Amino acid sequence: MPNKPSGPVSRWSRVSSERGPDLIVFRSRFDRMTHPLSGEDLDRLVLESSDWVNVVALTRDERLIVVKQYRFGTADITTEVPGGMIDPGEGHEESAKRELLEETGYSSTEWTYLGSVDPNPAVQTNHMHHWLAKNCDLLGEQDLDAGEDIEVATLSEAELRSAVATGEIRHALVLTALHRVYDLRDELRGSQ
Amino acid sequence: MPNKPSGPVSRWSRVSSERGPDLIVFRSRFDRMTHPLSGEDLDRLVLESSDWVNVVALTRDERLIVVKQYRFGTADITTEVPGGMIDPGEGHEESAKRELLEETGYSSTEWTYLGSVDPNPAVQTNHMHHWLAKNCDLLGEQDLDAGEDIEVATLSEAELRSAVATGEIRHALVLTALHRVYDLRDELRGSQ
Repeated sequence: MPNKPSGPVSRWSRVSSERGPDLIVFRSRFDRMTHPLSGEDLDRLVLESSDWVNVVALTRDERLIVVKQYRFGTADITTEVPGGMIDPGEGHEESAKRELLEETGYSSTEWTYLGSVDPNPAVQTNHMHHWLAKNCDLLGEQDLDAGEDIEVATLSEAELRSAVATGEIRHALVLTALHRVYDLRDELRGSQ
Repeated sequence: MPNKPSGPVSRWSRVSSERGPDLIVFRSRFDRMTHPLSGEDLDRLVLESSDWVNVVALTRDERLIVVKQYRFGTADITTEVPGGMIDPGEGHEESAKRELLEETGYSSTEWTYLGSVDPNPAVQTNHMHHWLAKNCDLLGEQDLDAGEDIEVATLSEAELRSAVATGEIRHALVLTALHRVYDLRDELRGSQ
């Protein structure tokens, strides 16, 4: 049996950095990085963007508020929890409240921070912040950006679990939010 | 109280598509899409790549096999489960077995599919497949790509839970895999 196959890793050092093309939702950058062991220089992609936020939002009768929209990456209509990009100068709590209201017309006075994840630390600089909003009330109409077309719906917990089991809800960053509120192992293991 | 704030959404239609720059791990594309309600044409980014795979791999004494490596997006050393990009012509099960062996030297004969997620359907075309490998044995040495420097470690379940609670493990796609095996709600709610 061989020994433990590897030792501790080191940070890589950056030789140079070059601005790449504007990608609408990301600013691209190419960093020339030195491998700490081989000394070889390698080009690595970095996608810069603001942090993101999303919200597990429950109505007073504990139905989950979801948004359905056409997504350009997978070319399909998805079911997700509300969320979006944090505006410049905006805090993530403020952003969570704004996105919930703009996308759905719902509002809440009971907010709990659920922590954050890194959407893809290999490439992306940003974080995704998760919030829980309880006892939401429908206060107004949607206030969508010109580039959005969003349907609002609510799901009972049984309907939510079914949407997870069938793969209707399958956006990784929606699932990392939902997993902080629900144990979804029975719905997810080998389901899709 | 206003009525339900929105109706069903439609698919958008694509007017044209233009190849964007090569981004090393993604091929970029710009699609000109027509908003189904306003009729306005909008440019949208699509990042194409092969599917990804990762593995919740447990040793015979039920320790989780993790890899530590420097990640260029967040410019930090992360703790993750083994995984990577599926090679052309490779199935995702084959890829999971290959990545586990190459990155860690471990192998297993007990594999269970845990389903898939969409890393970011708004922008990315690809899927991430999650696998569980039980009773792993250390068979050999790492076989790393020239661009990799990876440390292998194993964590008891208590150590895994601590690494999740402190945010040492915070890669969204690692968490979506782990959530299919462990209920991590106590460790994650408001922890980071």
